[in-house]
Amino acid sequence: MSNKTNQQWGGRFSEPTDAFVARFTASVEFDQRMYLQDIQGSIAHAKMLASAGVLTGQERDDIIRGLGEIRVEIERGEFEWSVELEDVHMNIEAALTKKIGITGKKLHTGRSRNDQVATDIRLYVRDEIDRILAEISRLQQGLLGVAEREADTIMPGFTHLQTAQPVTFGHHLMAWFEMLSRDYERFVDCRKRVNVMPLGAAALAGTTYPIDRAMTCELLNFSAPAGNSLDAVSDRDFAIEFCAAASLLLMHMTRMSEELVLWTSAQFDFIDLPDRFCTGSSIMPQKKNPDVPELVRGKSGRVYGHLMSLLTLMKSQPLAYNKDNQEDKEPLFDAIDTVKGCLRAFADMVPALAAKADSMRAAAMRGFSTATDLADYLVRKGVAFRDAHEIVGKSVAFGIAEKRDLSEMTLAELQQFSDVIGEDVFEVLTLEGSVAARNHIGGTAPDQVRAAVVRGRELLAGRGDAE
Amino acid sequence: MSNKTNQQWGGRFSEPTDAFVARFTASVEFDQRMYLQDIQGSIAHAKMLASAGVLTGQERDDIIRGLGEIRVEIERGEFEWSVELEDVHMNIEAALTKKIGITGKKLHTGRSRNDQVATDIRLYVRDEIDRILAEISRLQQGLLGVAEREADTIMPGFTHLQTAQPVTFGHHLMAWFEMLSRDYERFVDCRKRVNVMPLGAAALAGTTYPIDRAMTCELLNFSAPAGNSLDAVSDRDFAIEFCAAASLLLMHMTRMSEELVLWTSAQFDFIDLPDRFCTGSSIMPQKKNPDVPELVRGKSGRVYGHLMSLLTLMKSQPLAYNKDNQEDKEPLFDAIDTVKGCLRAFADMVPALAAKADSMRAAAMRGFSTATDLADYLVRKGVAFRDAHEIVGKSVAFGIAEKRDLSEMTLAELQQFSDVIGEDVFEVLTLEGSVAARNHIGGTAPDQVRAAVVRGRELLAGRGDAE
Amino acid sequence: MSNKTNQQWGGRFSEPTDAFVARFTASVEFDQRMYLQDIQGSIAHAKMLASAGVLTGQERDDIIRGLGEIRVEIERGEFEWSVELEDVHMNIEAALTKKIGITGKKLHTGRSRNDQVATDIRLYVRDEIDRILAEISRLQQGLLGVAEREADTIMPGFTHLQTAQPVTFGHHLMAWFEMLSRDYERFVDCRKRVNVMPLGAAALAGTTYPIDRAMTCELLNFSAPAGNSLDAVSDRDFAIEFCAAASLLLMHMTRMSEELVLWTSAQFDFIDLPDRFCTGSSIMPQKKNPDVPELVRGKSGRVYGHLMSLLTLMKSQPLAYNKDNQEDKEPLFDAIDTVKGCLRAFADMVPALAAKADSMRAAAMRGFSTATDLADYLVRKGVAFRDAHEIVGKSVAFGIAEKRDLSEMTLAELQQFSDVIGEDVFEVLTLEGSVAARNHIGGTAPDQVRAAVVRGRELLAGRGDAE
Amino acid sequence: MSNKTNQQWGGRFSEPTDAFVARFTASVEFDQRMYLQDIQGSIAHAKMLASAGVLTGQERDDIIRGLGEIRVEIERGEFEWSVELEDVHMNIEAALTKKIGITGKKLHTGRSRNDQVATDIRLYVRDEIDRILAEISRLQQGLLGVAEREADTIMPGFTHLQTAQPVTFGHHLMAWFEMLSRDYERFVDCRKRVNVMPLGAAALAGTTYPIDRAMTCELLNFSAPAGNSLDAVSDRDFAIEFCAAASLLLMHMTRMSEELVLWTSAQFDFIDLPDRFCTGSSIMPQKKNPDVPELVRGKSGRVYGHLMSLLTLMKSQPLAYNKDNQEDKEPLFDAIDTVKGCLRAFADMVPALAAKADSMRAAAMRGFSTATDLADYLVRKGVAFRDAHEIVGKSVAFGIAEKRDLSEMTLAELQQFSDVIGEDVFEVLTLEGSVAARNHIGGTAPDQVRAAVVRGRELLAGRGDAE
Repeated sequence: MSNKTNQQWGGRFSEPTDAFVARFTASVEFDQRMYLQDIQGSIAHAKMLASAGVLTGQERDDIIRGLGEIRVEIERGEFEWSVELEDVHMNIEAALTKKIGITGKKLHTGRSRNDQVATDIRLYVRDEIDRILAEISRLQQGLLGVAEREADTIMPGFTHLQTAQPVTFGHHLMAWFEMLSRDYERFVDCRKRVNVMPLGAAALAGTTYPIDRAMTCELLNFSAPAGNSLDAVSDRDFAIEFCAAASLLLMHMTRMSEELVLWTSAQFDFIDLPDRFCTGSSIMPQKKNPDVPELVRGKSGRVYGHLMSLLTLMKSQPLAYNKDNQEDKEPLFDAIDTVKGCLRAFADMVPALAAKADSMRAAAMRGFSTATDLADYLVRKGVAFRDAHEIVGKSVAFGIAEKRDLSEMTLAELQQFSDVIGEDVFEVLTLEGSVAARNHIGGTAPDQVRAAVVRGRELLAGRGDAE
Repeated sequence: MSNKTNQQWGGRFSEPTDAFVARFTASVEFDQRMYLQDIQGSIAHAKMLASAGVLTGQERDDIIRGLGEIRVEIERGEFEWSVELEDVHMNIEAALTKKIGITGKKLHTGRSRNDQVATDIRLYVRDEIDRILAEISRLQQGLLGVAEREADTIMPGFTHLQTAQPVTFGHHLMAWFEMLSRDYERFVDCRKRVNVMPLGAAALAGTTYPIDRAMTCELLNFSAPAGNSLDAVSDRDFAIEFCAAASLLLMHMTRMSEELVLWTSAQFDFIDLPDRFCTGSSIMPQKKNPDVPELVRGKSGRVYGHLMSLLTLMKSQPLAYNKDNQEDKEPLFDAIDTVKGCLRAFADMVPALAAKADSMRAAAMRGFSTATDLADYLVRKGVAFRDAHEIVGKSVAFGIAEKRDLSEMTLAELQQFSDVIGEDVFEVLTLEGSVAARNHIGGTAPDQVRAAVVRGRELLAGRGDAE
Repeated sequence: MSNKTNQQWGGRFSEPTDAFVARFTASVEFDQRMYLQDIQGSIAHAKMLASAGVLTGQERDDIIRGLGEIRVEIERGEFEWSVELEDVHMNIEAALTKKIGITGKKLHTGRSRNDQVATDIRLYVRDEIDRILAEISRLQQGLLGVAEREADTIMPGFTHLQTAQPVTFGHHLMAWFEMLSRDYERFVDCRKRVNVMPLGAAALAGTTYPIDRAMTCELLNFSAPAGNSLDAVSDRDFAIEFCAAASLLLMHMTRMSEELVLWTSAQFDFIDLPDRFCTGSSIMPQKKNPDVPELVRGKSGRVYGHLMSLLTLMKSQPLAYNKDNQEDKEPLFDAIDTVKGCLRAFADMVPALAAKADSMRAAAMRGFSTATDLADYLVRKGVAFRDAHEIVGKSVAFGIAEKRDLSEMTLAELQQFSDVIGEDVFEVLTLEGSVAARNHIGGTAPDQVRAAVVRGRELLAGRGDAE
Repeated sequence: MSNKTNQQWGGRFSEPTDAFVARFTASVEFDQRMYLQDIQGSIAHAKMLASAGVLTGQERDDIIRGLGEIRVEIERGEFEWSVELEDVHMNIEAALTKKIGITGKKLHTGRSRNDQVATDIRLYVRDEIDRILAEISRLQQGLLGVAEREADTIMPGFTHLQTAQPVTFGHHLMAWFEMLSRDYERFVDCRKRVNVMPLGAAALAGTTYPIDRAMTCELLNFSAPAGNSLDAVSDRDFAIEFCAAASLLLMHMTRMSEELVLWTSAQFDFIDLPDRFCTGSSIMPQKKNPDVPELVRGKSGRVYGHLMSLLTLMKSQPLAYNKDNQEDKEPLFDAIDTVKGCLRAFADMVPALAAKADSMRAAAMRGFSTATDLADYLVRKGVAFRDAHEIVGKSVAFGIAEKRDLSEMTLAELQQFSDVIGEDVFEVLTLEGSVAARNHIGGTAPDQVRAAVVRGRELLAGRGDAE
């Protein structure tokens, strides 16, 4: 930066900014991605200024035309971004002034970079939340399809990663669906707080110009103008709340990923992932690695980290705007990109999950997964639950020693442990009987899974974000 | 633990639990605080089981009476908690069985500790959110009072902790009010997702008993039963979302605390805190330390940490319940206690804040806080904003050299920098003129502050959580 | 708190502390665990003051005797802790003064609570690090035993949780040993920075009394007095560094835990955990859950959270001491307790791990684990590695289709893919041949595992922390 | 990616990688910055393979020449990086093979990408730690200069941001010096654990080729080869430990930054920052904002976040390498860049700090900063410390009411509170007397500050990292 007059604020300064400091404090490399929102905000501001008599109609039109040309240049890759001009706002304003002369400088009347950047970033996040919502819906749509297809496919349900009770694969996938529904809601709730307009707060105290915040609010589709100027320029809650919602989503995706990785292992062998979502090894020719779920699982760290980054950033900042806040963008942008990438990869991959029903069923046959059914059977025969539990525990110990599942024992063997056991016991020890018996809302019975799919379809239909 | 038969699950086990492991894995020391919710949940479950014909009316009544007695014993401090019985659930069930015999064991029919603990903790968090909401409202009420009182009190507004423009103290406090309103909303949104009933999910797959989840849901005032059993027993989103909302609240409180600490310093000297909220020094007799805001500022770390703790906890957990989840309680409970303590301290203290108006005003007089007003004045006289900025920058440089504020210069001195400046400039250089001119929604004009207080009162009135 | 004269700093205060604030700001409930270090520090301080002529010999002896009695009372549970007296320091000082009169008050000459608490906590952490080091060594000792026993036991080695190459179970456990060696080193490095003495920094600037810091330093076994008083009272690096070392240790323990959980699943079935380290289910009688590794895995969140808590706590604190710092203790203490508990559980459990060698071997036989060996064989026959990789990839694809491992194919079948393959190929396709061939330092060959065990034993012997 | 044969592992795959997945899983965009270390590692590996007879001398020379050319191309910006080739390793290997033919493929003999990337990243981090160490030393050098210059400059020392006791500005800066010395040590300790060689671990189990790890270790200047192959490819401790050390450093820099921001405020007015390290405002012409310390303060969040990111990443990963680990690089690289940028900005700026001695002195005169000296005076006259404390407390209360400092009261006024006070009291109430009296190691006496500077110079001289 050879010349201090390049700066927009040089009047009281006696030496130019140090070259390293100029680079160190510039943000244009990462904030240029908000160019569209910056232009939209400026157009709304210009229209309002004209309506308030601060700009003439001609000035307004020149500004709008100039900004339109700049947008085209940026989108064609022909715009020259300059670090000397610090940020996206100054770059566009300088280009505008070059294009339409002194009128370009008038655009900044009645606003400040503080409310301008706060407005841009909210517009940007709002747009991205809408994309994310649509992508969550697409992933959920995929889950509904597989869940319906696999509503009768029996697999072992696990607690503590130990075989617990038989469930259906469709039921398991519908658990994922539920998680994603809460994530969807959280982004919707976050969007409400994003969609409030800082513009008009100016540097920190409002402006002396006769601005009409209701007008810009309407033009930019915000739900309301921010109620306090000091808060408006220093509030970064929406970025933190976004990252919190993103962290929860990614946390859910680590759970799904963990299961996909387990299920594709030779030990579980429950599903197949298409080759196009896997990669191999440079040294081990037999390998087919579930890279997508592994990478998604790893990307949780990135998003958790961004959440912590922003919470740390805001800790102990006095009002109003401080330069620290410039650090809000990169974590937020990377969180957005990560969320979109992970959702896209999963939404593409999930419909192609191939269940290996035989292998799942064989696993459910092992591990005494119907032990609870035997206990329930005993209770129905009048045994107290805690006693039934003890009886079944002993039967299982016997089964482990003899290497036989409950359904593989003879009636006489079972009767060693309780004489209320009769021939009808073998019915409840089947996997199909076990899952069908859990037939209430939220239960794993195939009919309940199908009912849940229907409810899920209705939910998605009501959202209006899917194309 | 001398005897394996103490365990509820000993049937298949060949040796008792290691004594250290029993202590290491027990949760009763921290989960006993949910005793009330555990009893409420059990009563609802018993009523439902009776209605479904699984229990007799007599059994139901015995259970309800027994649990009622246990509640009284706990609240009188007469209940003997046992680590051998692992957790609050087993402790209460064992006491019930001792009291009413075999019927006590039947209470566990059709449920599992997995859905029981998930139900208890949601009931507990729901109650605590209601208390927190009321306390936020009380703090906001206090802020409205001080803001109204100080709507005309002028102080310097800061950006970068440098004097920026004059604002009113009331306006500044209303920025805090806005932050707290968003926090309030987030807890309300979180509560929606807390208020869903896991009961009926049993261990992970639902139950074979003819349960009526709609009935328990209504008895316990939940908005709906959870839609998927696997999800219901393994979902800890609500705990994380609570901690995220708590982290945002505490972040806001660090900003308020930071300002209170600054304002009570000898250098700022903007406010007085009553002695009863301060402490002294064991060695420096003159000290009066703002301990409450300092400690609240420090407590942010605790809550951020709990958020990170729970996000870490859930990362990569396969479905459904895993023992890891026992670690969800202590962070959540401590976050709740911390939020309530910090809110209480602030809600008690804020109404007692004493503004030192003279000192604030003197500070606003320094630091060229009306420089923007001069620039705006020039623009109204037809100078382009960016040029006006340059002119004012030079005037300020002159003022720094001469150690005089803008309002202390002569007309001739000001005219050195621009000949459009006239006698009327001195009006815009007053502090009162400066704040009064920012007269739009969200601006710092005293009338706007009073309008914001009115809006705030309406908001609080509509909540229905204040007494 | 009924009476302001209870306070040690009441002179300039006009009203007593608010009762809730007194509780909110008190620390005695959690800092009393440093009673021993507080007494040790006070005794050293008294000896030094006497040596410097500030106390008489009689006064010193009275103080030492009084503190000795207090220690006994505390350890017998007879000491009455008072929240009104805020913290451990004031409680002990008040008791001392009650016991020996006015001399008790003189003990505080030339020091402040700021340097006193900083000294106490360093002494405390130093002691606990020594205990942790001994416990890491004990766990490592256990690993060496099992690794030696299982040096020849073959299991599949995984990357991406896909079968990669055969390794030995002993080799796998020695990977854990290596992780723990780095953890040990980090605690040793942390201890160096813990072991610096703040005493003498007084409130923040040093003291006007003729203190002899070299003397207290020697009496308390510190390596050096802190070089700057402002830093000495405000430095909490050692607590953060401790939590960072603890987080890395716990991270390692999550990896071990994850593997233990996988290996005890029905799907892997690689090991048995003794019943005494497991628990069962209240509802599913067949369950035997690996609670200890699950809980340890979950406890990682707690320690990560404490690290983040302390980093947040210290962010943006101006020098020197601030009340925020009181929040350093609970996270640190809980991190210490958690580390010790997890290490103890693992050190007790690891020697009892029972490998299921047949099941491991069978798993290694599946999944084409010797594919790399075939590729290496081809290279030795003159094929370029990348081409060999391609050849083996095709053989594996054939094997998947035919459901046969490489070693189960005929020579003719293998020769379809490359005619350089001869009879000698079957030797390299055995599991034993595969592991034995990786015979260099760090490789999985049984001889290398045994060599690593010998190196491990030497390392532990050199530490001098094991009993 | 149009053609599966582009992949290095296509043999067993039946369809090409999905185009989005290829982009999503590629790392070349961020790992190309390790090109130099990748080439160094490959050269060492080639030399070792030749020495072991696996490559001919000619092959080795071709590889070294080819890699040398590639390095030049990369450094000239002429190298074409391809996302299809996934990562830096494949890009360079493909280019080498294109350049020297089939021999290029032989370079990968006896290693895998798993040990290759682990080696590259350790070499990279080791180099960057050396740069960071030199930059810490440069910053500390600057601090020593200012501390020496300002060894006698008196300012108020703060606790709780309340005036506590007078200190010297030099003493305060030496507190910063101490913090940085611990940071330096932590990076040195971290470097020990970075400097261990994974090469030779191959994919996870070692290799069947006759490699000589001692030779590559020596060629690459590592202190030792990693002792266990499974650990070697999956250990990312060094990255986490680096981020922990970086977080502590940044935490210290937030404290320094916070103080710089406070000190440049109109309220403190203790120092001047040169214009070249500040920026102005687009709207408020008078502003001169301390952007550098503000931004550095904000950047703490970024580094804390990366630490949390990596801890999360590694949580619960089973051995050995998983794709998740690819996510280790971006946080680590950004942490490195941030640390270097912040240190550079501070090292440039600190020597230019201009103390405003008059303003500092005036502040120290206010706030009863010599109250402790009065108490110490009373103790020397025979009053017990706790009683002296009470006497001074009352004097201060009187002073607040009368708006006079202790040194401004008459002897008679002071004697109201204790009759042992004599004329000699006014000596101890001077600022110079107060600081000079704290004359022991670590105390604020100017002579002690100068002694600390001498010790600091010796420390730096012994490091050998400064140029």
